[in-house]
Amino acid sequence: MADKKMVEAIADMETDFAGWYTDVVLKAELARYSGVRGCMYVQPYGTALWENIRAELDSRFKATGHENVMLPMFIPESLLQKEKDHVEGFAPEVAWVTHGGSNELTERLCIRPTSETLFCDYFSGIVHSYRDLPKLYNQWGNVVRWEKNTRLFLRTVEFYWQEGHTLHETAEEAWAETELMLNIYADFAENVLAMPVIRGRKTDKEKFAGAQATYTIEALMHDGQALQAGTSHYFGDGFAKAFGITFSGRDGKTQYPHQTSWGLSTRIVGGIIMTHGDNNGLVLPPAVAPVQVVILPIAQHKEGVLGKAAEIKTRLAKICRVKLDESDNSAGWKFAQYEMKGVPLRLEIGPRDIENNTCVVVRRDNREKTTVALNELETQIPLLLQKVHNGLFEAALARREKMTHAAFSLNEAAKIINTQSGFVKAMWCGDLACELRLKETAGVTSRCIPFAQEHISNTCVCCGKPAKQMLYWGKAY
Amino acid sequence: MADKKMVEAIADMETDFAGWYTDVVLKAELARYSGVRGCMYVQPYGTALWENIRAELDSRFKATGHENVMLPMFIPESLLQKEKDHVEGFAPEVAWVTHGGSNELTERLCIRPTSETLFCDYFSGIVHSYRDLPKLYNQWGNVVRWEKNTRLFLRTVEFYWQEGHTLHETAEEAWAETELMLNIYADFAENVLAMPVIRGRKTDKEKFAGAQATYTIEALMHDGQALQAGTSHYFGDGFAKAFGITFSGRDGKTQYPHQTSWGLSTRIVGGIIMTHGDNNGLVLPPAVAPVQVVILPIAQHKEGVLGKAAEIKTRLAKICRVKLDESDNSAGWKFAQYEMKGVPLRLEIGPRDIENNTCVVVRRDNREKTTVALNELETQIPLLLQKVHNGLFEAALARREKMTHAAFSLNEAAKIINTQSGFVKAMWCGDLACELRLKETAGVTSRCIPFAQEHISNTCVCCGKPAKQMLYWGKAY
Repeated sequence: MADKKMVEAIADMETDFAGWYTDVVLKAELARYSGVRGCMYVQPYGTALWENIRAELDSRFKATGHENVMLPMFIPESLLQKEKDHVEGFAPEVAWVTHGGSNELTERLCIRPTSETLFCDYFSGIVHSYRDLPKLYNQWGNVVRWEKNTRLFLRTVEFYWQEGHTLHETAEEAWAETELMLNIYADFAENVLAMPVIRGRKTDKEKFAGAQATYTIEALMHDGQALQAGTSHYFGDGFAKAFGITFSGRDGKTQYPHQTSWGLSTRIVGGIIMTHGDNNGLVLPPAVAPVQVVILPIAQHKEGVLGKAAEIKTRLAKICRVKLDESDNSAGWKFAQYEMKGVPLRLEIGPRDIENNTCVVVRRDNREKTTVALNELETQIPLLLQKVHNGLFEAALARREKMTHAAFSLNEAAKIINTQSGFVKAMWCGDLACELRLKETAGVTSRCIPFAQEHISNTCVCCGKPAKQMLYWGKAY
Repeated sequence: MADKKMVEAIADMETDFAGWYTDVVLKAELARYSGVRGCMYVQPYGTALWENIRAELDSRFKATGHENVMLPMFIPESLLQKEKDHVEGFAPEVAWVTHGGSNELTERLCIRPTSETLFCDYFSGIVHSYRDLPKLYNQWGNVVRWEKNTRLFLRTVEFYWQEGHTLHETAEEAWAETELMLNIYADFAENVLAMPVIRGRKTDKEKFAGAQATYTIEALMHDGQALQAGTSHYFGDGFAKAFGITFSGRDGKTQYPHQTSWGLSTRIVGGIIMTHGDNNGLVLPPAVAPVQVVILPIAQHKEGVLGKAAEIKTRLAKICRVKLDESDNSAGWKFAQYEMKGVPLRLEIGPRDIENNTCVVVRRDNREKTTVALNELETQIPLLLQKVHNGLFEAALARREKMTHAAFSLNEAAKIINTQSGFVKAMWCGDLACELRLKETAGVTSRCIPFAQEHISNTCVCCGKPAKQMLYWGKAY
């Protein structure tokens, strides 16, 4: 009964995806609402998930030569205003500190919505010669954007992220960095989170405020809406000029360095939920799951069961993140509970299993049961975790392929978008007017110009003029 | 010449300790000033140091059953005001957010100076039954206090820390937690940072705003001033009552839980500098040093030197954090540079060493040189790192003992404080009036009532009435 009640308590994902999403966040105990609009209490389970994501990314950043720094949360108003496009993009959505204690400040401080301006100020003090380059920095922190419509993890007023900021001697190096970091994000999404992504470049209209180019990874959620899962920006020397960052080059002349930034945030947790979740709750990719295997003793009052379960836990703790639930809740309640929490593998061990020197392992993604000999646990559990990962990735990829449609006219594009969900791919002449027109007609934004181009037609989906490239379109979170 | 110049560039610690401190922070590249008063740009070296501190503490917290959470930075004004003593203690030093984008907020938000109020609000939503207890939570984050006088790491407007917040069924459990966490801090300070500390309890006057008791670890810096290095607070059920946190007990009756909090911040970096540093710069305790061994090739242009240095690096990378500097800077410059950065061991390898199958290892703390056979590196380097740790701890302990003085009258206490630096230990009757009088007369605050009491006299140092306990006094950062 308990498990039935638990499953009934969440909305159906096919009929109420938004309700389902919020239910999963709350019932899986990832986060709760705080008293401030748009801010979260991230619970232990959600925090452990984010810590695993952070550790995976951080090791990739460090392996490619990046170092972490910690810059302050406050940006003086005058500093924010130094780069024109950047301030226009962010000023409408920042929180302003006006008082310290009982005194009014002489200059307002904005709470960082992103830290380009702070990094530029910092760089200007530490870069003098080409010998000081490159600077390959990253920071883990919290930022604030005064969003009107908020949703747990997906769009919050305060969120957590990492932001990389790098400075290079040449434009070529900065372009290479922009691409390298996008590829690290894509590799992380696919090989750690089991989340297939389209790699591409944002149109000029959709690029980051102040950037010359924005690269993006775009994932498709269960409901057919897209999620921008990570971005990498090439700035050229625009910020350097605005902030007076110069260095003396190999030729002895004063030059401006070339800059990038790249970020991935807690909204990826929303992406994980909406990529892999089902009507029983969360489904977590094994590489970041706080608990990879939950051990549930069956008929645990019988002699030897708890002892054997504890022995298995000790063995598995050496190779994965394992939890043993020996509480007096019913087996049914526990099954539902750990399904809700998305634990990749459930290991059941009862008196009959012990007699046979086996246990039963159940995959969360497809509920497939495997009987595993106890003396093979150390080899079988990693294999089964890998199978869950592969299963999740393949299911998500198949769904994306099914939900990606080619369109050859404006009407067709609008029709697809309004009747089916998913990505629309269409050729584009490159003109802003056509991009705007598709947005007006179909109500969607361009997602990206994919690096993996297909030539599906010769003409622009809007104006019929010769097409320059294929674009992905879609509704997005 | 280069090394001489570098060393000359920092102030002398005996004559200008404050100048020396700031010079070390800047020259060792731990942090720089940001454009906002009291805020820091924490550089890669300082960030790596903090990350090591964080990892050491975090593993201790998790080993004792604590889980991390992430709570927001914003506290609504009405929430801050719920606990009377707490708001009185913190309201004068908080930063206020009054505008989001271009709109004035209907209620001001303070940026957390500490998060008791947020944790109470969070707890009130998740604790219902004794089965929900204990809650053993910690968070790593940034907080803001609008301090008037700031110094890099020691007292900054924004700083980084961890704050533990726990909720217990009984007062006994909460007292035990308060003590456990103080002992974890003390163990960490002494066995990781090589920083001897006095464990004790703050007087009522000096305890945390809203706490029933504050436990503290107090360290003595090189200049004889004290540093409160970590605190652990017992709240009783005061916050629970103010915030309406209740649970249904084992007897079915509604009860208030008992609460603790405990924190340690980036000011500990200042403590490390002022405990171990010398006139050549920073000296880092090996357990948290970003680089534990720096390999400096001697006569590196000679055949085989760089190859052998790289080979040693590969071997040592398996057992410690090692860096090889093969830049074309002079050996003298490198010696000074890594002394400034406080790297615990310098390994020199040149043509003659290679011939002898040895290298020279120099300790940063006392400059002792050891010739180490290359085939014994894996056993000798860990031993030498341990020796540096022990050397640092013993030197700091000997200094503290030399700088701790007993006083038996008010005049004597004032005289010691004004002519010698360090701790004054004196008996106390327990009255606030005497505590205030000593502060007025000698200009110092009480540091703590040490757990390790000594009975040095029968009477209070101030009033001559019967003494209840011995107190430590001192000037403090």
